[in-house]
Amino acid sequence: MSKNDRISNSVIRRLPRYYRFLGELMNEGVSKISSRELAERMKVTASQIRQDLNCFGGFGQQGYGYNVTELRGEIGEILGVNRDFPTVLIGAGNLGRALAIQFDYARYGCRLCGVFDADEKLSGKELGSLSVMPLSELESFCMEHKPVIAILCVPKEAAPDICEKLASYGIRAFWNFSHYDISLANIPDVVVENVHLGDSLMALCYGINNRDKQKEQKGEGEEENES
Amino acid sequence: MSKNDRISNSVIRRLPRYYRFLGELMNEGVSKISSRELAERMKVTASQIRQDLNCFGGFGQQGYGYNVTELRGEIGEILGVNRDFPTVLIGAGNLGRALAIQFDYARYGCRLCGVFDADEKLSGKELGSLSVMPLSELESFCMEHKPVIAILCVPKEAAPDICEKLASYGIRAFWNFSHYDISLANIPDVVVENVHLGDSLMALCYGINNRDKQKEQKGEGEEENES
Repeated sequence: MSKNDRISNSVIRRLPRYYRFLGELMNEGVSKISSRELAERMKVTASQIRQDLNCFGGFGQQGYGYNVTELRGEIGEILGVNRDFPTVLIGAGNLGRALAIQFDYARYGCRLCGVFDADEKLSGKELGSLSVMPLSELESFCMEHKPVIAILCVPKEAAPDICEKLASYGIRAFWNFSHYDISLANIPDVVVENVHLGDSLMALCYGINNRDKQKEQKGEGEEENES
Repeated sequence: MSKNDRISNSVIRRLPRYYRFLGELMNEGVSKISSRELAERMKVTASQIRQDLNCFGGFGQQGYGYNVTELRGEIGEILGVNRDFPTVLIGAGNLGRALAIQFDYARYGCRLCGVFDADEKLSGKELGSLSVMPLSELESFCMEHKPVIAILCVPKEAAPDICEKLASYGIRAFWNFSHYDISLANIPDVVVENVHLGDSLMALCYGINNRDKQKEQKGEGEEENES
């Protein structure tokens, strides 16, 4: 724990995956696992796992392996999965509805406590255990319930204004699905995860495209007898 | 282009973001931009931009900057955004519906041509311009329309079986929103993007949690007169 603030960003990005895999191991009743076995399961190298988990210290013992429950607990504490962060969702379109109904917030240390939409016709519409509220009630809701995280599922044009408002209402972190890059806004002291689903789809397309090009090149190479 | 197959994975992951930003510049009528200006806009360093874009060569000239349209076109070609990949979506729950209706596939080089769900009660339900089809029609649909990409919005338990089937029907790439890690399945020669939204939310929570801990430590440090 004392080494916490020195953990690199790339290790941080990998922690949720460790947390997930260790959870699965727990569900399977596995109590300890070697870095080699964990590596095989996660399709990474054992040395990467040892390096990554070394940052926390004390959970791997030579010749014994990792204590699954302890290591998961430690990673969970670092990630803050027990913090129960109050969370609001802005924008109850299709994606907002999916995130309101289908997502298991408790599993990730959050609690969805309010859903808002600019379209007052949606007010009162039930989404799981919550009802959509009008944006006009957002400020008083934030004053009362003090949400920490805001999930943004609003159109790009609406995002800058709503971000600024939310920050002034005390929101400290944005989980952003709008096409607006919040990291570009000049809001000090907020944490942002811009989820660009399109970037992920483009990376997938690159994968196909690149394989096709490699095949083409290989084909050409063979014809020219260069490979 | 000739350097294509030597582009590192981390550069590849950044390409979609360059593509997006260059698109915005085009929309604003900007025809050329220096690495310094682009860096400021994207909140990265100019040297990273120069290094990244160097992989493609020929689009940046000393003292002139990048030709926005040409560079975007080149990156788009590498990503395959003009390939018009036929795409099917499996699982018409909330998230599947959101992805079927709200997502602009054409923008990313894809064309959604079929939506399937195991629940036959959903068959015929309209989602945008498509109607949900039963899984029993998936094989014949694939034979006829030859989709390349499958979007998986199915429960974890259903995922391994449907993945294997889709691969045997000719699917070459999975955009995976199920909680099942397809990269762990032993399907050869498929490209996979596992979208773990929970990982992204956990990274966000870490951000808040870590700031709180730093504040705590700083507070303690000040009390102990150590800072």
